[in-house]
Amino acid sequence: MKAAVVPTLGASLEIRDVPVPEPGPGQVLVRIETCGLCHTDIHAARGEWPVKPKDQLIPGHEGVGIVESVGEGDLPVAVGQRVALPWLGQACGHCRYCVDGWETYCTSPSYMGYTMDGGYAEYAVAWASHVVPVPDGVDPMDAAPLTCAGVTTYKAIKVADPKPDETCMVVGIGGLGHLGLQYARIFGTRTVAVDVHDDKLQLAKDLGADHVVDARGDQAAQLAEIGGVDIALVTVPSPAAMRAAHAALNPNGRLVIVGLPADNRLELPVFETVLKGISIIGSLVGTRNDLAACFDLHARGLTRVVTESRNLDDVNACFEEVLAGEVPARLVFDMR
Amino acid sequence: MKAAVVPTLGASLEIRDVPVPEPGPGQVLVRIETCGLCHTDIHAARGEWPVKPKDQLIPGHEGVGIVESVGEGDLPVAVGQRVALPWLGQACGHCRYCVDGWETYCTSPSYMGYTMDGGYAEYAVAWASHVVPVPDGVDPMDAAPLTCAGVTTYKAIKVADPKPDETCMVVGIGGLGHLGLQYARIFGTRTVAVDVHDDKLQLAKDLGADHVVDARGDQAAQLAEIGGVDIALVTVPSPAAMRAAHAALNPNGRLVIVGLPADNRLELPVFETVLKGISIIGSLVGTRNDLAACFDLHARGLTRVVTESRNLDDVNACFEEVLAGEVPARLVFDMR
Amino acid sequence: MKAAVVPTLGASLEIRDVPVPEPGPGQVLVRIETCGLCHTDIHAARGEWPVKPKDQLIPGHEGVGIVESVGEGDLPVAVGQRVALPWLGQACGHCRYCVDGWETYCTSPSYMGYTMDGGYAEYAVAWASHVVPVPDGVDPMDAAPLTCAGVTTYKAIKVADPKPDETCMVVGIGGLGHLGLQYARIFGTRTVAVDVHDDKLQLAKDLGADHVVDARGDQAAQLAEIGGVDIALVTVPSPAAMRAAHAALNPNGRLVIVGLPADNRLELPVFETVLKGISIIGSLVGTRNDLAACFDLHARGLTRVVTESRNLDDVNACFEEVLAGEVPARLVFDMR
Amino acid sequence: MKAAVVPTLGASLEIRDVPVPEPGPGQVLVRIETCGLCHTDIHAARGEWPVKPKDQLIPGHEGVGIVESVGEGDLPVAVGQRVALPWLGQACGHCRYCVDGWETYCTSPSYMGYTMDGGYAEYAVAWASHVVPVPDGVDPMDAAPLTCAGVTTYKAIKVADPKPDETCMVVGIGGLGHLGLQYARIFGTRTVAVDVHDDKLQLAKDLGADHVVDARGDQAAQLAEIGGVDIALVTVPSPAAMRAAHAALNPNGRLVIVGLPADNRLELPVFETVLKGISIIGSLVGTRNDLAACFDLHARGLTRVVTESRNLDDVNACFEEVLAGEVPARLVFDMR
Repeated sequence: MKAAVVPTLGASLEIRDVPVPEPGPGQVLVRIETCGLCHTDIHAARGEWPVKPKDQLIPGHEGVGIVESVGEGDLPVAVGQRVALPWLGQACGHCRYCVDGWETYCTSPSYMGYTMDGGYAEYAVAWASHVVPVPDGVDPMDAAPLTCAGVTTYKAIKVADPKPDETCMVVGIGGLGHLGLQYARIFGTRTVAVDVHDDKLQLAKDLGADHVVDARGDQAAQLAEIGGVDIALVTVPSPAAMRAAHAALNPNGRLVIVGLPADNRLELPVFETVLKGISIIGSLVGTRNDLAACFDLHARGLTRVVTESRNLDDVNACFEEVLAGEVPARLVFDMR
Repeated sequence: MKAAVVPTLGASLEIRDVPVPEPGPGQVLVRIETCGLCHTDIHAARGEWPVKPKDQLIPGHEGVGIVESVGEGDLPVAVGQRVALPWLGQACGHCRYCVDGWETYCTSPSYMGYTMDGGYAEYAVAWASHVVPVPDGVDPMDAAPLTCAGVTTYKAIKVADPKPDETCMVVGIGGLGHLGLQYARIFGTRTVAVDVHDDKLQLAKDLGADHVVDARGDQAAQLAEIGGVDIALVTVPSPAAMRAAHAALNPNGRLVIVGLPADNRLELPVFETVLKGISIIGSLVGTRNDLAACFDLHARGLTRVVTESRNLDDVNACFEEVLAGEVPARLVFDMR
Repeated sequence: MKAAVVPTLGASLEIRDVPVPEPGPGQVLVRIETCGLCHTDIHAARGEWPVKPKDQLIPGHEGVGIVESVGEGDLPVAVGQRVALPWLGQACGHCRYCVDGWETYCTSPSYMGYTMDGGYAEYAVAWASHVVPVPDGVDPMDAAPLTCAGVTTYKAIKVADPKPDETCMVVGIGGLGHLGLQYARIFGTRTVAVDVHDDKLQLAKDLGADHVVDARGDQAAQLAEIGGVDIALVTVPSPAAMRAAHAALNPNGRLVIVGLPADNRLELPVFETVLKGISIIGSLVGTRNDLAACFDLHARGLTRVVTESRNLDDVNACFEEVLAGEVPARLVFDMR
Repeated sequence: MKAAVVPTLGASLEIRDVPVPEPGPGQVLVRIETCGLCHTDIHAARGEWPVKPKDQLIPGHEGVGIVESVGEGDLPVAVGQRVALPWLGQACGHCRYCVDGWETYCTSPSYMGYTMDGGYAEYAVAWASHVVPVPDGVDPMDAAPLTCAGVTTYKAIKVADPKPDETCMVVGIGGLGHLGLQYARIFGTRTVAVDVHDDKLQLAKDLGADHVVDARGDQAAQLAEIGGVDIALVTVPSPAAMRAAHAALNPNGRLVIVGLPADNRLELPVFETVLKGISIIGSLVGTRNDLAACFDLHARGLTRVVTESRNLDDVNACFEEVLAGEVPARLVFDMR
């Protein structure tokens, strides 16, 4: 099968012909149809995080495809079913986080496209327990970004516990943010979209944002005019953007962070945090239920996914595109 | 009446003979029995916060006393009743925070000992709606620290939504922390006390801490050995202590902040915040219900308040004592 | 002014010419534009509840109008402002329920159109603290039903804490239910509408219900086919409907009750309640914030209110219409 | 091995010599030390519930013992470890309830002593994923009742989300209730114990109940005198007791039900439910985390378990004892 492999951390990916893997007990083999490109894939391929990925990694944690064969065991998915292969490749099922419904913080997890090979290939092996069925009517091109960008922002807004009488700001209307904005609306909040690109601001309007803020102008003044915000989801890995979002929060405000700044440092004012009772909340992807929710919402016609199709052969060029910040939408490799 | 007055911001307080104030409509006159000394009083007297206190301020927001007379209106307290005069002197009752049960974030509040004269005097006027009855069996010497140090730490732990299978660490076993530690126990959590003074560590043991950590040693190692913590309440205004607490948090961990560092800056690592799903929560005092809860818990025999009695005439020396960090417990002026 | 007065409990209302009332301290006089007819008004006029209303009652707790004059005090509303006069005419502001954000359970409340005269008149006096501003762009004809039918169903769904991956059933698509259905959608849930009238079922479809169930057929089978429901809001005062809704609930399901059956008895199966972990939740109107939320959602274009205009002179005929179950929508008296 | 077997539903149990079972993949063989007798065991042996237990059932879902051998797989427990074998013998790990932290409502569960053989024997096979380690310092005689009576009442109080300023009433101070009372105290609430036996009322006092109510007297008057209750846990399967508890609830009150009345019917007043915003909550056992919490609380010295030791040979007499309501405490078979 064709696969994009990281030969050594930091090197360009190589398109190779490698053997189709075989599913072990509890696993399934999935014929990949589509796989989104998430910035995390670039971090993985370059080994930029403290814990390194597996050797000879095939990245990809937004894979979607059809179950081709199944390993031993009484498995919850069947041959022929369309499934998604998310970041959380497997969780133990018995640590306190798994038992309490927080499998994303499992103490002994596997990660697709990181500790296991992922979806940048024609086939991938995954744990049957942790693939998520894609319902009829959800296009594989749409399902791919929902598998990480979608579930990450859905969960980020969910942990802020939004109410319809609250205002939710989404900072950065890219791959994550354009979905986060729609989830904010689905939770009933009054939405505010913040970006610095005309096309993204236009996209936000098209997606129904109640307010659109051009952060090239005086962001603080624009946000003050609409009465501040109660929730801010910052999808860009910028400490300055996080601080600006914090400054716009009303009492009881919640700043949700999903992006990782290069230097890992965020400096925040304590006085405002205490006097306004503000919470800063970190959030990491979502559970299988959260992803199922994203698929269900899409099947119900409530979200729109903006994608561009790419050929896996162009994976290195795609990485450069993303790093240059020039992509108008989520890039998705189409393996069909 | 005798009162300790701030002649100009930053100057020493003066003990003066001033007229007994008169309660207006909706107000009560309270004959002060005791009033605790909170670090905030020092900030107020020195004008160290961005918003300045009233002119000729009489500080004090841990006042406790007997209602001597009442102003016009159908008031919820009566002459002869013992009441506490907390930081939140009045809230509007109709802004969205008041209506939702978060009066501490009222958009037009009054503060005792800051925007109104407080309890460093023989008498004080307060809003009848916002004084809190002190039940029989709660000594005025105990009631005073509960009025701010108590309610602040009670609420801080409450907003973290603790469960009995969680571990709660309290950093700093002083005026606030020794009460916070007891509230953590009351919420059923396994408790960890952190301090750098032998007497405070001993006090923590006496108060029933499950674990005691001497932060002069390797705090991280000691906390790792007990399996990390789920909640950390930092009562000292030290960014380093806050970061150390953050580092000890388990997934889904909550860092609650009530203290204000001098330079107002807290730098936190984003990677750990996101990957562990950590929340950093600011919390400001508590509502009338929260204070009533503190009094009720004390009346039920569940808390012990460590105080030292002082004479109001020595107010300036007491300020120095607190600033030098030498007080073994909450100082309380006894006006009886 | 013209007013509809209950001469004695149980008698027909009389249209009388009575003096315009004067606002006392803390009160406002409102020139009524519209007032909805809620079934509770009929219970009030007939004295059907254990606690009886005031003598010579003017009913109406869905009044909307313009502040004509204000009493003494520093009031949160001004002359010329459009406000709504909801069921909760006043709450004390200091009992434990008020302080905790649950003013609807205040221990010493006043009720519009019950313990105070209400909106079935050209003018009404109300407490300034508890009228709720109607934003520009919300028509008084729409604002009236939102003032009770809206806020009651909004709050009922809010207390069930719905999530977008849940299914919410609304039983009865009348004055309350047609709004409840829309709020269920606003909270992001998959919605199910249940009724026994073709026009109501059609209305539910028009309002975007994901599923429509005709309860004249096999309701249980239809609900089983869509996988059961997680939340059921029963707006009809029928124990049989409540039991049928209970039977359709999934594990962790919540049955929310707002209607009062004539004989006040609801018999439920315990086995299913325990084995599925079901909650049955009573909910009473909503707070000022909840009503403000309903107005805001309407101003944002997210709800549609179905009304029919009536003349106050026809109040007795209108009562009969409602009792006969023949009204296609909320009846609203237009006093303009 | 010796085991108590149900030869046919409804017949007396027989003490038999049966083969020691062998653990399959993912399972462990446990040498039983102790096993509590829960009323559910009697329902099981008599086939009193709609869904019938397995043929030739060995009852028991409060088994505690030492892992003797393990089946295939990478299992979370090891030979020699002390573990508990609770009601929830296995959950699927991938249905929406399992993923969300509600495994007790799993859509395809196994139950110890019901669909699988349980702890009324010298050995039992259990799923490694769902046995719960018993920490050092927890006596097997204490661990047994905690395994069902403990976790059931712990969870029942947890789902009511109690706060320390609330009052929690526990009705019935038997096997479940004497533990529920202690958990109510651990959550910080003011506790009220209700019973009709002098020895149980005395036990409640010994366990630290703040108030003790003799339901042979005027229960309503006694409860009114202490200001009503916010939470009521009814551990007795009596609709009358549930209604009496409901009548004592304050606004926002929660009635938690864990017992199953013989005729499965509970009639409740709707008016009070709606006007006070009352919730009635069913709760079924607890998760592995909940049971681990019960063990941890016991190891911390916070609970006391009242038991009487019995010989498995006397199982039929023990059933009669329980049915006669004459047991002073939880009966525990000691197989050592």
